[in-house]
Amino acid sequence: VSDWGLLDPVGDAGGLADDDALLAALVEVERALVAAMSRDDQDAARVAAVLSTSGLDRAALAEGARRDGVAVVELVRQLRAQAEAALAGDGELVHRGATSQDVLDTGIMLLAQRTVERTRAELVAGGDALARHAQAERDAPALARTLGQPAAPISIGATVGAWLDAATSALAELDAVTFPAQLGGAVGTGAGIDDVAAARSALAAELQLDDPGRSWHTDRAPVRRVAAASAGVVVALARVGTDLVTLSRAEVGEVVLAGAGASSAMPHKRNPVAAVRLIAAGVEAPALLATVVAGGVSSDARPAGAWHAELPALRSLLRLAAASAEIAADAFAGLRFDRDAAAANLAQGLPDAVPRAGLDAAGRTVDDAVARWHHVKEAGA
Amino acid sequence: VSDWGLLDPVGDAGGLADDDALLAALVEVERALVAAMSRDDQDAARVAAVLSTSGLDRAALAEGARRDGVAVVELVRQLRAQAEAALAGDGELVHRGATSQDVLDTGIMLLAQRTVERTRAELVAGGDALARHAQAERDAPALARTLGQPAAPISIGATVGAWLDAATSALAELDAVTFPAQLGGAVGTGAGIDDVAAARSALAAELQLDDPGRSWHTDRAPVRRVAAASAGVVVALARVGTDLVTLSRAEVGEVVLAGAGASSAMPHKRNPVAAVRLIAAGVEAPALLATVVAGGVSSDARPAGAWHAELPALRSLLRLAAASAEIAADAFAGLRFDRDAAAANLAQGLPDAVPRAGLDAAGRTVDDAVARWHHVKEAGA
Amino acid sequence: VSDWGLLDPVGDAGGLADDDALLAALVEVERALVAAMSRDDQDAARVAAVLSTSGLDRAALAEGARRDGVAVVELVRQLRAQAEAALAGDGELVHRGATSQDVLDTGIMLLAQRTVERTRAELVAGGDALARHAQAERDAPALARTLGQPAAPISIGATVGAWLDAATSALAELDAVTFPAQLGGAVGTGAGIDDVAAARSALAAELQLDDPGRSWHTDRAPVRRVAAASAGVVVALARVGTDLVTLSRAEVGEVVLAGAGASSAMPHKRNPVAAVRLIAAGVEAPALLATVVAGGVSSDARPAGAWHAELPALRSLLRLAAASAEIAADAFAGLRFDRDAAAANLAQGLPDAVPRAGLDAAGRTVDDAVARWHHVKEAGA
Amino acid sequence: VSDWGLLDPVGDAGGLADDDALLAALVEVERALVAAMSRDDQDAARVAAVLSTSGLDRAALAEGARRDGVAVVELVRQLRAQAEAALAGDGELVHRGATSQDVLDTGIMLLAQRTVERTRAELVAGGDALARHAQAERDAPALARTLGQPAAPISIGATVGAWLDAATSALAELDAVTFPAQLGGAVGTGAGIDDVAAARSALAAELQLDDPGRSWHTDRAPVRRVAAASAGVVVALARVGTDLVTLSRAEVGEVVLAGAGASSAMPHKRNPVAAVRLIAAGVEAPALLATVVAGGVSSDARPAGAWHAELPALRSLLRLAAASAEIAADAFAGLRFDRDAAAANLAQGLPDAVPRAGLDAAGRTVDDAVARWHHVKEAGA
Repeated sequence: VSDWGLLDPVGDAGGLADDDALLAALVEVERALVAAMSRDDQDAARVAAVLSTSGLDRAALAEGARRDGVAVVELVRQLRAQAEAALAGDGELVHRGATSQDVLDTGIMLLAQRTVERTRAELVAGGDALARHAQAERDAPALARTLGQPAAPISIGATVGAWLDAATSALAELDAVTFPAQLGGAVGTGAGIDDVAAARSALAAELQLDDPGRSWHTDRAPVRRVAAASAGVVVALARVGTDLVTLSRAEVGEVVLAGAGASSAMPHKRNPVAAVRLIAAGVEAPALLATVVAGGVSSDARPAGAWHAELPALRSLLRLAAASAEIAADAFAGLRFDRDAAAANLAQGLPDAVPRAGLDAAGRTVDDAVARWHHVKEAGA
Repeated sequence: VSDWGLLDPVGDAGGLADDDALLAALVEVERALVAAMSRDDQDAARVAAVLSTSGLDRAALAEGARRDGVAVVELVRQLRAQAEAALAGDGELVHRGATSQDVLDTGIMLLAQRTVERTRAELVAGGDALARHAQAERDAPALARTLGQPAAPISIGATVGAWLDAATSALAELDAVTFPAQLGGAVGTGAGIDDVAAARSALAAELQLDDPGRSWHTDRAPVRRVAAASAGVVVALARVGTDLVTLSRAEVGEVVLAGAGASSAMPHKRNPVAAVRLIAAGVEAPALLATVVAGGVSSDARPAGAWHAELPALRSLLRLAAASAEIAADAFAGLRFDRDAAAANLAQGLPDAVPRAGLDAAGRTVDDAVARWHHVKEAGA
Repeated sequence: VSDWGLLDPVGDAGGLADDDALLAALVEVERALVAAMSRDDQDAARVAAVLSTSGLDRAALAEGARRDGVAVVELVRQLRAQAEAALAGDGELVHRGATSQDVLDTGIMLLAQRTVERTRAELVAGGDALARHAQAERDAPALARTLGQPAAPISIGATVGAWLDAATSALAELDAVTFPAQLGGAVGTGAGIDDVAAARSALAAELQLDDPGRSWHTDRAPVRRVAAASAGVVVALARVGTDLVTLSRAEVGEVVLAGAGASSAMPHKRNPVAAVRLIAAGVEAPALLATVVAGGVSSDARPAGAWHAELPALRSLLRLAAASAEIAADAFAGLRFDRDAAAANLAQGLPDAVPRAGLDAAGRTVDDAVARWHHVKEAGA
Repeated sequence: VSDWGLLDPVGDAGGLADDDALLAALVEVERALVAAMSRDDQDAARVAAVLSTSGLDRAALAEGARRDGVAVVELVRQLRAQAEAALAGDGELVHRGATSQDVLDTGIMLLAQRTVERTRAELVAGGDALARHAQAERDAPALARTLGQPAAPISIGATVGAWLDAATSALAELDAVTFPAQLGGAVGTGAGIDDVAAARSALAAELQLDDPGRSWHTDRAPVRRVAAASAGVVVALARVGTDLVTLSRAEVGEVVLAGAGASSAMPHKRNPVAAVRLIAAGVEAPALLATVVAGGVSSDARPAGAWHAELPALRSLLRLAAASAEIAADAFAGLRFDRDAAAANLAQGLPDAVPRAGLDAAGRTVDDAVARWHHVKEAGA
């Protein structure tokens, strides 16, 4: 695979989960392992200091992934050669006690933690923009629709508040995720590691990951949780994207997105591309989560294929979530609402409605949604 | 649809989430709504007392589901008729302020809470059985396999301990789920309800559900969370099922399941049907979760179809989890391990291995897994 | 499971794939098997004549499905008892040479054939309605939208023609499906059957199924194909449903659906329930197809769980397709288009457009779509 | 996204569907469009001759994909600049009459056709290897297992023949796929193109694609069909992978894979990596197909997001199929069967069985499977 974005309208939030980032994470894990497994701090420091992504043979790593099923076998070979070259005889300190899955699972969790951190920051920016809009449009009369049809008076702000509420839940879910280190050795029991609990704890501390107090080689709940929370972010934002497409239709005209996309056939077109991208991510995410869940049906002390399918799907979800949050942060900030259009649609859609009661209730919904947003945002900060 | 189990090897744990149970839940919700929305306790008590599943026209309810997209419209009609018949003039107290989604979402959460309660009880029974086996076989030498191949010495107990660990995570995930009531009125703002926060709180209290402090018509995070936790239970147990099929193969022979199934063509066959059923559930669950997640991409103040697809998939997951837990509770209790076969497979698979170090580590893993199980089990009790 | 439609807005097209229908199909298969496997026509006729669904113990069959993983083991026991009771000593002629999978796979194919026949008839009715609308509105100016935004002039007819085109492709896909009988005996080789090719051919002929010339116990391509074609029908119609929700929005107002659904909270609402149901089916179908495909990863001479998950998902798809086609047939016949609204939306959405060129092209598209529809419809009739 | 294989054990069959290959296809399509749309052959030839992938700004294309939702808008800008630079004033001949979707859909079909061609070649090689093994082991006694348990005597060859049969079905499905060109202009009606039928036909001929006789912007059946056939290949081979993991277990020992993978923790390990990779692909494929199907629920004259999610998932399936076929071609050629182990497992698993009848039937199954393979292979060649 050698893609650079030609067929990727959603994007990947700046490559923060790409192979180079993962490789860097894997090398960090191997470095931290040297420290965690060593009885001699000085030796460990010397070895860890020479391990580096620079000089690694990426083509050989990719080939190794296909030959051995996991690139870590080849990575260890190359890192040991680095250690041997710099410090004759100390190669064996590299990857001591660990199995490939320890390094890849831990590396993925490191990648996940960093990607989720970015996702959170963008989601917060997007949610803050929604909170501002909700408050600004708190009392602007609008038509609420259910099943596509005129339902009852609401305010623009309350519609935005409902979007915000979904973002709030997604943020809370994201903040509940933990990122455990993995260390179990060959078959998950820590055999061959002097004090596996201490070593795992040290590894986790070194990498600022959580110490799970056990190895989870075949219990994929931690992966499933990251994946589900990531899918939650994508869905919460795709839901807004769907409404944005509706509300920016010419016949509805209640919302205008900034920075619309061009068409190759129709120069007049201004496409709501941000919304389109959020929706596209929403179409992709459910199936990726299904793959992560299916890949969680482990077997033996390491499964023959399920694990190998699970991690790429997890990464795709991490990317979708980060990209969606980035798109949302930008798009939500640039939204402009047309109060006249909203009021006119209300008057035409529900000619006999008296909007007052609906507006009061809508206003309270806005207040609640904004308060909840700030509460969750600050609780997780 | 009128199925009675002919094509359902997994089963549904005794029908506790079937249409009759859901109907009973919906009537309970309407009853609780009368109480929650009424200013006059005596009136409310009189009306609630006459609402009943008995006498409801199920065929009309099914037809209503297809005609209106949701059966609640027809249910309200029938319940109002009950109230009118028993107490002339009080029909309007039924369903006051609420929309169909309020009743169906709340009813589903009630159903979910009850089904999950059963799932939990069965999962606890199954986990307790695994904990007993893990301790009994704590030091029985066995072969750990990775990618299907002989990897390192382990104990039977540690393999069981890894199964237990997955069950523990699933239990923890289940115990973290909340079951919020839903009350938002026509478009989620509570318009038309005097004090929607108080009414929602009263509704939740009446039904022993959680008070979410908001309506979540278009924020489907609560549903997604129940679904994800249910899928987690299914996957954790399917993972055991997969190993049971391997370990009970004639050539491996380390496990025997009680109560094996018959074959129509081969009288000698003793099929590991419990494991087969757990695996089948594991094949079905990921896609159902994908449907719940896809159905969570809401739109407007109520989506045109997504919500309608989400709830049946959620129910299917609730059933799969309950059935899987029930199957597991029964099957795990009846497992018998063959220490001789395990030892022989170790000796043949790894002729040069010295099992001692592996066994010590395995034993500690068992202790940890059992301790974690009891901790999580008691924390959630 | 004992559901009767309370949570099933999509419905199941009148129960034609429910457990009773499947049971009838299984009994037909066992009857045909007696004939196909017997060397003595008179004996076979006598035995086949007494096998009947009446008197079968459904609860025992459901329990058998859970106990043995497949209900056929118990069904054979009951049918043999029927034969023994009526014709002392002839029980052994029942199910001779066959394995449970032979009967269940063949029975499912029989059910599939009948359900698809109904799906086809309804799809033809729905497509015919679309063809009529397309021709009637061939030259009615309208606005084509891409990504939700005004794009170019088109005719109402051409929009309908695009819907028709998707239905045409779905019909062609459906007509390409074959429904093979299954006969392979215990492990798929036909061992224990004198002339398995002849017996299979006779079985297929008896049931008016296709003779695959082989057993396909572990090659699930035939199932996958039925499932994919069924999903194709659902998607083609969900695509129309999506447009119907948009075009029937109050602000757009180009389409009115007959027979709209009611709301429990808003008496004025007229919900486009047919469209909602089509969309709901479209949300459910993709994941069900994924389950069928995942269940197709067979193993051994019969897999431990994959097969057991595949058939229920296939049936769900058969139902969704039949129900969608039935909904569409009804809804499409009742569509009314508002030419004034369409023309006004065009004028407002693209004020500077000259619709003439677009209309001519649109008209030709209609002609092509209608011609293609009739061609495919007649080719498959 | 900038991945190079670090987390991709399955691989992508040499990058034949990567972004560079797609970009080349898109430029070919634009070139062919110039020819198909021009009234002056000489002009067209001159313009087409200067359009080239060399000099295209890939970063700008990737950015364009995110800005406009599709990279073709930016590609057209760059290609027009190429034409303008080389032939002052002829830029307008580029992309005349077409919309972005015309170019991307056609380009994807070109990519699909080429990838499937490779998939076919590898699948044929893999199937031929299976056919040879099936014949060589036609009469070697072995144990058939169902649900993991000893079932009946079979031959090694018949087990391989069952694998071959699944490959045959997958090949037949692949050979039935068509690869239509896409040309519909802005909204699918061909408005703005003088004779769209002729232009489409010319475009298809130029690119050796099928002429669909219509545009299929919103009828995604052609995409669904390629995707389903690709998933079929993956599943057929994952099914073999699953059996290979079982049969190469130390306790079973009936198969040895050549070129086994290494472990980072256990130097003695020889992992059946080819089988692992086939299985991993089998876990990923079902959900990708679900995404393609979900993305096929189109809307308007071009959907806002569904289309954008569909094509990346299609490409992933194309890759999985090509990679699986490549893995299989290599792995199947290198399989070695252990007749003694197979015979011993039969004797132990079914001590009282008389294998003769089973072997005769098994042999006939082999003959049929091999004949069917050659028939399908040659019919599609």
